[in-house]
Amino acid sequence: MNQEATLLPPLASTAVLKPSDPVPRDATQVSGIDFNLPENKNVRVSTLVKSMRTMGFQATSVGIACDIINEMRKWRGKTKQEQDEAEEEGLPAEDGTGNEKCTVFLGYTSNLISSGLRSTLRYLTQNKHVSAIVTTAGGVEEDLIKCLAPTYLGDFTLPGAALREQGMNRIGNLIVPNDNYCLFEEWIIPIFDKMLEEQEADPELVWSPSKVIARLGKEISNEESVLYWAYKNDIPVFCPALTDGSIGDMLFFHTFRTSPQQLKIDIVSDIRRINSMSMAAPKAGMIVLGGGLVKHHIANACLMRNGADFAVFINTGQEFDGSDAGARPDEAVSWGKIKAAAKSVKVFADATIVFPLIVAGTFAVEADDQE
Amino acid sequence: MNQEATLLPPLASTAVLKPSDPVPRDATQVSGIDFNLPENKNVRVSTLVKSMRTMGFQATSVGIACDIINEMRKWRGKTKQEQDEAEEEGLPAEDGTGNEKCTVFLGYTSNLISSGLRSTLRYLTQNKHVSAIVTTAGGVEEDLIKCLAPTYLGDFTLPGAALREQGMNRIGNLIVPNDNYCLFEEWIIPIFDKMLEEQEADPELVWSPSKVIARLGKEISNEESVLYWAYKNDIPVFCPALTDGSIGDMLFFHTFRTSPQQLKIDIVSDIRRINSMSMAAPKAGMIVLGGGLVKHHIANACLMRNGADFAVFINTGQEFDGSDAGARPDEAVSWGKIKAAAKSVKVFADATIVFPLIVAGTFAVEADDQE
Amino acid sequence: MNQEATLLPPLASTAVLKPSDPVPRDATQVSGIDFNLPENKNVRVSTLVKSMRTMGFQATSVGIACDIINEMRKWRGKTKQEQDEAEEEGLPAEDGTGNEKCTVFLGYTSNLISSGLRSTLRYLTQNKHVSAIVTTAGGVEEDLIKCLAPTYLGDFTLPGAALREQGMNRIGNLIVPNDNYCLFEEWIIPIFDKMLEEQEADPELVWSPSKVIARLGKEISNEESVLYWAYKNDIPVFCPALTDGSIGDMLFFHTFRTSPQQLKIDIVSDIRRINSMSMAAPKAGMIVLGGGLVKHHIANACLMRNGADFAVFINTGQEFDGSDAGARPDEAVSWGKIKAAAKSVKVFADATIVFPLIVAGTFAVEADDQE
Amino acid sequence: MNQEATLLPPLASTAVLKPSDPVPRDATQVSGIDFNLPENKNVRVSTLVKSMRTMGFQATSVGIACDIINEMRKWRGKTKQEQDEAEEEGLPAEDGTGNEKCTVFLGYTSNLISSGLRSTLRYLTQNKHVSAIVTTAGGVEEDLIKCLAPTYLGDFTLPGAALREQGMNRIGNLIVPNDNYCLFEEWIIPIFDKMLEEQEADPELVWSPSKVIARLGKEISNEESVLYWAYKNDIPVFCPALTDGSIGDMLFFHTFRTSPQQLKIDIVSDIRRINSMSMAAPKAGMIVLGGGLVKHHIANACLMRNGADFAVFINTGQEFDGSDAGARPDEAVSWGKIKAAAKSVKVFADATIVFPLIVAGTFAVEADDQE
Repeated sequence: MNQEATLLPPLASTAVLKPSDPVPRDATQVSGIDFNLPENKNVRVSTLVKSMRTMGFQATSVGIACDIINEMRKWRGKTKQEQDEAEEEGLPAEDGTGNEKCTVFLGYTSNLISSGLRSTLRYLTQNKHVSAIVTTAGGVEEDLIKCLAPTYLGDFTLPGAALREQGMNRIGNLIVPNDNYCLFEEWIIPIFDKMLEEQEADPELVWSPSKVIARLGKEISNEESVLYWAYKNDIPVFCPALTDGSIGDMLFFHTFRTSPQQLKIDIVSDIRRINSMSMAAPKAGMIVLGGGLVKHHIANACLMRNGADFAVFINTGQEFDGSDAGARPDEAVSWGKIKAAAKSVKVFADATIVFPLIVAGTFAVEADDQE
Repeated sequence: MNQEATLLPPLASTAVLKPSDPVPRDATQVSGIDFNLPENKNVRVSTLVKSMRTMGFQATSVGIACDIINEMRKWRGKTKQEQDEAEEEGLPAEDGTGNEKCTVFLGYTSNLISSGLRSTLRYLTQNKHVSAIVTTAGGVEEDLIKCLAPTYLGDFTLPGAALREQGMNRIGNLIVPNDNYCLFEEWIIPIFDKMLEEQEADPELVWSPSKVIARLGKEISNEESVLYWAYKNDIPVFCPALTDGSIGDMLFFHTFRTSPQQLKIDIVSDIRRINSMSMAAPKAGMIVLGGGLVKHHIANACLMRNGADFAVFINTGQEFDGSDAGARPDEAVSWGKIKAAAKSVKVFADATIVFPLIVAGTFAVEADDQE
Repeated sequence: MNQEATLLPPLASTAVLKPSDPVPRDATQVSGIDFNLPENKNVRVSTLVKSMRTMGFQATSVGIACDIINEMRKWRGKTKQEQDEAEEEGLPAEDGTGNEKCTVFLGYTSNLISSGLRSTLRYLTQNKHVSAIVTTAGGVEEDLIKCLAPTYLGDFTLPGAALREQGMNRIGNLIVPNDNYCLFEEWIIPIFDKMLEEQEADPELVWSPSKVIARLGKEISNEESVLYWAYKNDIPVFCPALTDGSIGDMLFFHTFRTSPQQLKIDIVSDIRRINSMSMAAPKAGMIVLGGGLVKHHIANACLMRNGADFAVFINTGQEFDGSDAGARPDEAVSWGKIKAAAKSVKVFADATIVFPLIVAGTFAVEADDQE
Repeated sequence: MNQEATLLPPLASTAVLKPSDPVPRDATQVSGIDFNLPENKNVRVSTLVKSMRTMGFQATSVGIACDIINEMRKWRGKTKQEQDEAEEEGLPAEDGTGNEKCTVFLGYTSNLISSGLRSTLRYLTQNKHVSAIVTTAGGVEEDLIKCLAPTYLGDFTLPGAALREQGMNRIGNLIVPNDNYCLFEEWIIPIFDKMLEEQEADPELVWSPSKVIARLGKEISNEESVLYWAYKNDIPVFCPALTDGSIGDMLFFHTFRTSPQQLKIDIVSDIRRINSMSMAAPKAGMIVLGGGLVKHHIANACLMRNGADFAVFINTGQEFDGSDAGARPDEAVSWGKIKAAAKSVKVFADATIVFPLIVAGTFAVEADDQE
């Protein structure tokens, strides 16, 4: 090969100009939204997310997530038991008739309650759009603390030492004054006192995280609280590691206050409760924001029914490090946590951007009939 | 310390219950959107993105990006020369009067033209919302190729060997049939022939990437094309590494066809052109989607004016590996590529989700006066 | 500005050629390793990681991590109580004398036990290089299951439906045959039977996750197990969400087997235990691999002592989404979980690459005196 | 389903205890390194990376990368022409005999030259371990500038405005005093003067980026420079966007100095040059550190030969946003840029950690015969 060659080398042209097989007729062309059109001026979110379906990359994932959630919401059918009986008799398990709804498991990490996403999560809970919640200790306590005092906007780069000096705690670009935790301590300790009293009075009473959380939701009695509405609407909130946060600090303090008596919080009864919900569900859907425990716990419960029927994961984790947070839904399929035939998607993005968008394009399109 | 201790250890309570300084009066409380409100049913994007400003994390970044873009769009003032003269005389350089607009540099990577975001980028170019474009070779050729044949939706997990067998090229979850590149070859080679003819006829004619791209935009003559509108509206498109893609393959082929004559494409004249635009700009704003060359090239041009006045970066790169793609705007401040007093933000997200959202909440709220 | 201008514009040259302040004398020059040198042929890890300290980006973070871990390991001093008394009397709390060692909290996520990193974690536990461990349910059970049957290498792209069909569970690029979990069920159910018996026999006995895990470590009696050595060496293993995994499945099954009696596992006593360890520690160091609960739980325990003295975080999480996993150590400083004066670093990388490197360059340089 | 049920529900036990197919005999068990063994004290990198092969996650990717690089290095065979002729005659193209070596394309981004990795890249170039280099403008100029004055360690969080004030430029956690660029201007402008003189004197002389870079490598005449060794060893360095950096600033300045004469740098001749190398290569291997242009340009050149035979990619990009940087090697297979039968791997990690590790475990195990 030299610079003076005058013939186009066939190797290169064959490689570059390789002809392609015909495109399948049902292939979808990539397209976007045309902001020139008058109807796309000051456009509604529902219109925009519909157009995202064909935009490619994560826009497509957002579009798919909306489709799956709408299917989850609209599903009506038979009870699990009727489905199982039909299947045993060789009949179709599901024919679209029936009055049961899909059981929706909603998971979210602590930081999302600290963020303004809390009001979206409250909206879903208040309007019974979800059946059960899984969160972390922070996801419980920050909801309660926000009823006592606000969280503020800050910046990712505020230096930690100066903040500690001022008693300001940073969560990403948010700031929670430490006084909020002092208020929380004043509020919760008397409740723990009562709960301990009840435990000591009734040997049958075994506190579990979900029971503790329902009690806290009742006590906070505040319509801005997710946990209040979960309590009101009998939506269990699971949080096996309830001690891993400020609640744990307060429980720790409480052990000294009441020694040698101690509150006990049993996690075995809750695993029975969440797994039983999964097994009884006619269909099961997962909506999980963030990774770690909240994602794994819901998926694991769905294994008990041989897989969820719908799954929407939203997080920024990557699969290359083998973490459960980063795993694509297809990894959960291998475990039987999502059915092979299920509809599932993972949106790779911060939930504070994507989830308001998805809720605005699905749950919040029409007026709610608040039951 | 033992389990029987009955006194709350002061060390722990002092650390946990540290009081905080008063919160500054102007601190912004974190809040979200209330989907219970009737006005937030089937909400408009412009309303949603406004509410994102106080949601925290990347929702806040989206809100800030919209604010900055709106400021960029609405700025009117004096010419750079008038500003400089005022400054020399110790007068305020800028008093809001004048008819000049902010020069907006738009950068995007190739994959975004492959995606449905192309129609949004076309919208901005058609309506003269941007002053100059920087992209990569793929960002040039995919816009042209889409005028010849469509790109399709695929899946991130389609196996490469089978696709190659079928002549289907994958870009993330998109598919481009290889036939499209054959069509491109047929289209572009005669144009290169003419360009070479012109070069040989006129010793003064020095092709540069921006001149080549303007010519291609003229030749494609298709209203769906970004480059067509860039040509029509005299918006230069810079692409120093124009050979790094299918255009490069075609130029390579062309060298054999016309040997010993060869098209020459000079990159020095383009660096002069983009830097001159930056220096002449009364104010300069950057909107950059993706990383790598497109981000660096615009920022570097803005160094010539001692920094951009506005900067919105959208990409998924992380700073920990020291890449320019991952760098926060503050790194560019250290180089003088963004002014210390400039408004800037980086949104960490896939542009296909975020940019339609931002454009719908800024450039596309009102009807355009297409000049 | 036009192309014919012949004077270098002063604006650009002033911006580009801005002179700099003198570099501080103690500034460290960036440098690398010279593989030309004979002593750097077939180089030892300890030499390579030393050279990384000045390489920049994450290589520097690896170098810093090694320095911090070495300082943690070598620290000897007074008890916490002696330190506190000295401080009260206005004396230096620490003068380097004394026989106490730094309390080292090691955290790791489940996937790391599934990976070959398990033998490194076993090494640290067997040789008493760590004082306490925090992990997730999977981090407990996978260690035990590996004593019953192996985990295999697979691939990130193996399709989930086919794997489920074959009973093969995927964890990133690893495969665990589902038979392993059947073996686990056979092994653990009789142990749960005995534990329930003991619980019913002794009203004072309250099982906690750390007690359950110590029992399982004893029962497995296998020198390849991390939990076995933790049991042998009295290193508590904390795992508040012990039900979130296969152990939870087995506990769920067990509730049916023994109904109406049920094993109870209390999480309050464990929060007391881990917090007490933190408060009693003369110095506290954290080594945390991965994010989520394991990172937060250790940091939260260190709040009880007003901050850890040393912190090494290794994970791939990013701060932009406000997750605790992604937070830099400086966020923990704002909470009082790391002391302002502490040495801390986060290495942004998959722990399977970085942690063997770090251990080979620190804990495993000299022969161990296995006590 | 109620809490009093006493029978283990068959649905759950069937799902959880699904038996698995037999594991294939040749399946590899996950294992790690045993630091208890005396031979693993103060271990050599070559031993550690060998053990990584079976550790899972990215450790496995590092192990595979070493295997592929060793294969690339050791390959000996026939010329491309002989292979093609054999193939046409229906004979095996390759039988392991012959004296040709694999052509190795090395790509790296600018920041890696700024980091201490430069000395590793210099080592590879000096010892002719690579055949051609592709980099960005920064990857060229920072190598030269480091011969004039050092780069320093800094911190990712140093504030930009203060740094600009001091004339200190930040690259991740590195600092380059702006004086270094002033020194660079003094050094390079006279060279540009001479180059322009030569251009004007010889109408046949067409400067291309690779020719300019070779000239700069010759002029710098410094054994610490990658470009010096590339020049000495006739290793072309490709950089189509040579104007995108400080060199571009200097070229821009130079256009004013010499107006109306201007240096011209043609990119067409370089695309011919790199593509011709690829087509002539008996085997082609890619080692690419970082994403963007450097990755795409090498892969595109390998399309001209219908695919590379070996590929090692190291970067932190993710595929979810459809970027070329984030694409797995399998995407390049669909394009014919990597052969379907090729050995390829992507290591998801910062190259400053991983590449010294890989080089120490491959190229730098034995003493070099410096030719």
